Amino acid sequence: MIKVGIINVTGYAGAELARLLYNHPEARLVSVSGRSAAGKPLAEVFPHLACYDLTVEPEIGDVDFAFSALPHAASADAVAPLVRAGVPVVDISADFRLKDPAEYAQWYGVEHPAPDLLPSAVYGLTELNREAVKGSKLIANPGCYPTGALLALAPAVKAGIIAPDVIIDSKSGISGAGRSLGLAYHFAEADGSVSAYALDGHRHLPEIVQELSLMWPKAEGPALPVQTVRVWPPEGKAQGGRPSVTFTPHLVPMTRGILSTCYAPLLPGALPPGEAAKEAVREVYRDFYQGEPFVRVVDAPPATKHTWGNNLCLVHPTVDVRTGRLVVVSAIDNLVKGAAGSAIQNMNVMLGLPETAGLDAPAVYP
Amino acid sequence: MIKVGIINVTGYAGAELARLLYNHPEARLVSVSGRSAAGKPLAEVFPHLACYDLTVEPEIGDVDFAFSALPHAASADAVAPLVRAGVPVVDISADFRLKDPAEYAQWYGVEHPAPDLLPSAVYGLTELNREAVKGSKLIANPGCYPTGALLALAPAVKAGIIAPDVIIDSKSGISGAGRSLGLAYHFAEADGSVSAYALDGHRHLPEIVQELSLMWPKAEGPALPVQTVRVWPPEGKAQGGRPSVTFTPHLVPMTRGILSTCYAPLLPGALPPGEAAKEAVREVYRDFYQGEPFVRVVDAPPATKHTWGNNLCLVHPTVDVRTGRLVVVSAIDNLVKGAAGSAIQNMNVMLGLPETAGLDAPAVYP
Amino acid sequence: MIKVGIINVTGYAGAELARLLYNHPEARLVSVSGRSAAGKPLAEVFPHLACYDLTVEPEIGDVDFAFSALPHAASADAVAPLVRAGVPVVDISADFRLKDPAEYAQWYGVEHPAPDLLPSAVYGLTELNREAVKGSKLIANPGCYPTGALLALAPAVKAGIIAPDVIIDSKSGISGAGRSLGLAYHFAEADGSVSAYALDGHRHLPEIVQELSLMWPKAEGPALPVQTVRVWPPEGKAQGGRPSVTFTPHLVPMTRGILSTCYAPLLPGALPPGEAAKEAVREVYRDFYQGEPFVRVVDAPPATKHTWGNNLCLVHPTVDVRTGRLVVVSAIDNLVKGAAGSAIQNMNVMLGLPETAGLDAPAVYP
Amino acid sequence: MIKVGIINVTGYAGAELARLLYNHPEARLVSVSGRSAAGKPLAEVFPHLACYDLTVEPEIGDVDFAFSALPHAASADAVAPLVRAGVPVVDISADFRLKDPAEYAQWYGVEHPAPDLLPSAVYGLTELNREAVKGSKLIANPGCYPTGALLALAPAVKAGIIAPDVIIDSKSGISGAGRSLGLAYHFAEADGSVSAYALDGHRHLPEIVQELSLMWPKAEGPALPVQTVRVWPPEGKAQGGRPSVTFTPHLVPMTRGILSTCYAPLLPGALPPGEAAKEAVREVYRDFYQGEPFVRVVDAPPATKHTWGNNLCLVHPTVDVRTGRLVVVSAIDNLVKGAAGSAIQNMNVMLGLPETAGLDAPAVYP
Repeated sequence: MIKVGIINVTGYAGAELARLLYNHPEARLVSVSGRSAAGKPLAEVFPHLACYDLTVEPEIGDVDFAFSALPHAASADAVAPLVRAGVPVVDISADFRLKDPAEYAQWYGVEHPAPDLLPSAVYGLTELNREAVKGSKLIANPGCYPTGALLALAPAVKAGIIAPDVIIDSKSGISGAGRSLGLAYHFAEADGSVSAYALDGHRHLPEIVQELSLMWPKAEGPALPVQTVRVWPPEGKAQGGRPSVTFTPHLVPMTRGILSTCYAPLLPGALPPGEAAKEAVREVYRDFYQGEPFVRVVDAPPATKHTWGNNLCLVHPTVDVRTGRLVVVSAIDNLVKGAAGSAIQNMNVMLGLPETAGLDAPAVYP
Repeated sequence: MIKVGIINVTGYAGAELARLLYNHPEARLVSVSGRSAAGKPLAEVFPHLACYDLTVEPEIGDVDFAFSALPHAASADAVAPLVRAGVPVVDISADFRLKDPAEYAQWYGVEHPAPDLLPSAVYGLTELNREAVKGSKLIANPGCYPTGALLALAPAVKAGIIAPDVIIDSKSGISGAGRSLGLAYHFAEADGSVSAYALDGHRHLPEIVQELSLMWPKAEGPALPVQTVRVWPPEGKAQGGRPSVTFTPHLVPMTRGILSTCYAPLLPGALPPGEAAKEAVREVYRDFYQGEPFVRVVDAPPATKHTWGNNLCLVHPTVDVRTGRLVVVSAIDNLVKGAAGSAIQNMNVMLGLPETAGLDAPAVYP
Repeated sequence: MIKVGIINVTGYAGAELARLLYNHPEARLVSVSGRSAAGKPLAEVFPHLACYDLTVEPEIGDVDFAFSALPHAASADAVAPLVRAGVPVVDISADFRLKDPAEYAQWYGVEHPAPDLLPSAVYGLTELNREAVKGSKLIANPGCYPTGALLALAPAVKAGIIAPDVIIDSKSGISGAGRSLGLAYHFAEADGSVSAYALDGHRHLPEIVQELSLMWPKAEGPALPVQTVRVWPPEGKAQGGRPSVTFTPHLVPMTRGILSTCYAPLLPGALPPGEAAKEAVREVYRDFYQGEPFVRVVDAPPATKHTWGNNLCLVHPTVDVRTGRLVVVSAIDNLVKGAAGSAIQNMNVMLGLPETAGLDAPAVYP
Repeated sequence: MIKVGIINVTGYAGAELARLLYNHPEARLVSVSGRSAAGKPLAEVFPHLACYDLTVEPEIGDVDFAFSALPHAASADAVAPLVRAGVPVVDISADFRLKDPAEYAQWYGVEHPAPDLLPSAVYGLTELNREAVKGSKLIANPGCYPTGALLALAPAVKAGIIAPDVIIDSKSGISGAGRSLGLAYHFAEADGSVSAYALDGHRHLPEIVQELSLMWPKAEGPALPVQTVRVWPPEGKAQGGRPSVTFTPHLVPMTRGILSTCYAPLLPGALPPGEAAKEAVREVYRDFYQGEPFVRVVDAPPATKHTWGNNLCLVHPTVDVRTGRLVVVSAIDNLVKGAAGSAIQNMNVMLGLPETAGLDAPAVYP
């Protein structure tokens, strides 16, 4: 049995790691840390984790594998010594996701605490990066929004059928905001209400743009150049060749789940005209995700509830034939495929375990 | 006092009309009809309307003014004789919204029951059509989604600052589906879940396209032609000069409210570059809606809860300066500004009453 | 117009006062105070109150009438000088509810700040105390739980049909906890969950017991003495002649509303045996509340949603004929009849205005 | 591997059985039936069960063990031939819960379809009846409300510390009403609302009374006789020696969970006086449930959310020392411990498997 530790078990991602690891056949949770709750039994902090006989410690003890669920900056600080000591780590924070420390500083407002580790960190969207994950000792676990958006868009991007002019409209349950208190997350304020936020730019935007850029086929021939699509500003110099992405997150009155509705113009001739385009695009997606245990291409628009508590991403691609637009809807549980589940999936791949170990359970529905 | 009747009071729009009329200073609800509940006291069907001493009748009686809250087709059948008898009517159904009876037949699956009345019917989005409403005897009350979307987009369209390439991503509370039963509206299925629906085309789409087309400035000079934006199909002939609109409705686990997030590319030079574009676009919107009692341009993204039970539309326009895209978020209560409230607003304008009569109450928050 | 001020408008009760006063025909809100938000426009703190052109002040200005929505202790401090200056006040806090300052100190953990005002304060459950409210300058507005429980029990208590052995099981929406932050009110924690709290004694218990004691018919003849019912402890000395009351509040995942299910054994011979008892008890209640504008005795179990946003208390009394127990279910909106609505009702009575002024609106349903 | 079938998989209890069986180490779901959905892939009826490659059949095939999740009466019809053919069955319907077919006919409105099987059926509240379950071929799986109420009350009843005068106030999530459509379960009606129902007597009442009667210690000495507690009707003859139980179910706006708050007067001298009674009663409960894998006696009031998706019953006993009343709060997931989970627990015991097989997973929280 692999001895596993969770750094900062007291947030929702940390607690979800503990929940999922409970039934992992080859890993055993032996140590959990957390600052505010240090010294308390885990069962007191989280009654649903009373199945564990663990106490929250100030620091995790001796482990074979570590997850960090600390906030950004604090996470890199905690993770760096472990990595340097040879302990493989999945970092759920944002610290190792952006390749460019300057971009990190710009979006997170602090200097990166361990820029020397960035080159060796692998962006752990397992389905798109499995080989790199295998050989890695430090995984940057993707953000919850990027996970849903990238899995929704990757097949179309890689197939070269859409122009780099993407809108991602995401609807998230409120656990995505974490366990910290805030007026917007007070039940009486959030219940019965939907709102958009971070219209000036959410921290997950650069992560989405970076990964889309990496996977976008380099324009060589007839593909529509970026500037044809982006009509403003006239110069179009700001994006530096990156796809033009508008990302709008919304807060929805539910506890778990992210639904991402993604839009992009189809390139001329990319798909057969008319209704046939719908089946054709579904075929592209089915081929792309064939054999993937945690991505399912579905024929009807998914509901986030179909993924409650499990590690699936449901993807429904279709075409708005009136406008020639690709529309893809993806659904995940933000705490599982969007955080703790994909972290364990990455651990499994890193350690050569069966990828589905500990993760093969149906969603809790209704 | 104007004697008012509600045809089909037993759905949510009908009941909401009754609720709002209770405090109308110049109108009195004297007659309500409904087929399934005929013969029952209104207080039995809706305990919250026990303030009325009315019985649900098979047909409404003698009234000075009528609202129809019947489903489509049935509504035109019921409304036609009233209109012909000279009784002014606001029809909440879709029957008189589309100008073209062929388009009606295509989307609603039946021949229009009273096509001769179509030319005299006025599309009652009051803010955009006030003068026509004033002189009308038959108002087609706008659909709930079109109301939020059109109020969000109209200032930008009329100012000529966006290309006719629009995405409307709407999130609706479940009362929008009406009071009829359906598995998707069962609490245990809808709670804790978000989903998209009608991806092949929602009935509110042709209504939105029709109204946007009517208000769109006719391209004469430097404005970007449609086909530059729409890249597929190559021919681009399908739309007949209409703006290209993708509309995706979503079901959200709340009872009331629609949030519409609208996207369109800004035309080159339409706004000052950079951050200044945000204030500039807000200025366009504030000017457009100056003096409007029921549209408020707000500086922060609105929450649907800020409109619970009242007739406001909150509009927050901004610019994604990274991509040159206009982003407008609007919030309404689908049963008030999206149905019963705007119907009363139209009645007020038709009859020369103060436009806010009976509608001037703050939202119920939280 | 009466010039009205709200002390501490920034909580839910304060904001609800402002909402309801907006349409009061004879009172005008001219001044609002609040410490944390002092200096901000009211519309910024509460977008739904943008209909007011008011700024939150550190202290309210010159008014004819004041409401205090401050927390306990702070409220008495703020209210005392106003009362002494002759300004009539309704205090929504708990400060003037308990007659005995020692009991206040025991339950609220502080010495009463103005015990000299206690004798002149009137407990403002209007339906039960209307004459005293009329002549008063200082109203202790009842707590939300006591309002629902006392209106549910009063007719039976005063009719002498139940033994003084009462259980009140209440289910409250989360706005009852106020606008302050707390983990239990975080959406992700409260959603999808019901729990009981304050099992060792909620602060509303002494208030309920005090008022029930005052209204309970003094045992003189055949009525069952208290000690026959209470079987433990054997001595039964702790209660000092007061009715034995167990009160259990619960938190329910909704924003507004309190449902109180109240149980008490019927006295022998109090009602006709068998099914007839049900109609008989309903008759007792209908007689008791005849003519009351804000209490409605209903024939079917009410839902809290039937009172959303309005000042009604719906009461459904029945008998469990298998066990000889009275069961009464009452429903209120905790922020209206349970706080701001009843406060305005009290103001109306104090000032000789029509009791329903500003309060006569149907609930917002669904 | 034991081959298992589910009769009527298309309701919530049936689907939950399939979900839980997916990870059972010694049982494999091989056959599912359902009338309306016959012929459809299970994955189409329930997207969260797409992990199964099963088609819904009109009748289940050849199995070693069967669960019936049919409605009452239909269930006995389907179960009887299986039982007679020697296939062990857990029946989730109410058909074999009441020992007396006359009582069944009275509450369910039909003659019992297989009264000859009643004597051999065992009431499967495993914790209270484990030995009988072991030897049985036909288990009547307890109702959801009785499960929470009986586990809350059993330790106190068997310890002889309470009088037989019990109130059970239960709050249920809406999945308890099943997947059938009904206006009360429409999201827009149920959301934001709490209500009581079945005040004239819920079908789970006779089940609760039957089981409490069976476990109640026969009064021999100083224990308070029933009639001293029940004060009405004077004769007290109706109950025939059974405990006096008032049971009030409530509908709460959440998908899963039942919280039961149970009240009963403590017998004189049953517990030490004052605050010490609280710890004493907790001790009684801890002893009673020592070693039970699925009942946890907790020191703080539980939330239903602490059991979401798992088979635990959390029990919090305490004493209202002001009134000498036992108050016990229990929380379960109505679809797991209240239906499918306890059914699998019973299967495990019947077949001599480890009792926790397939059921040992933490709740999904938040």
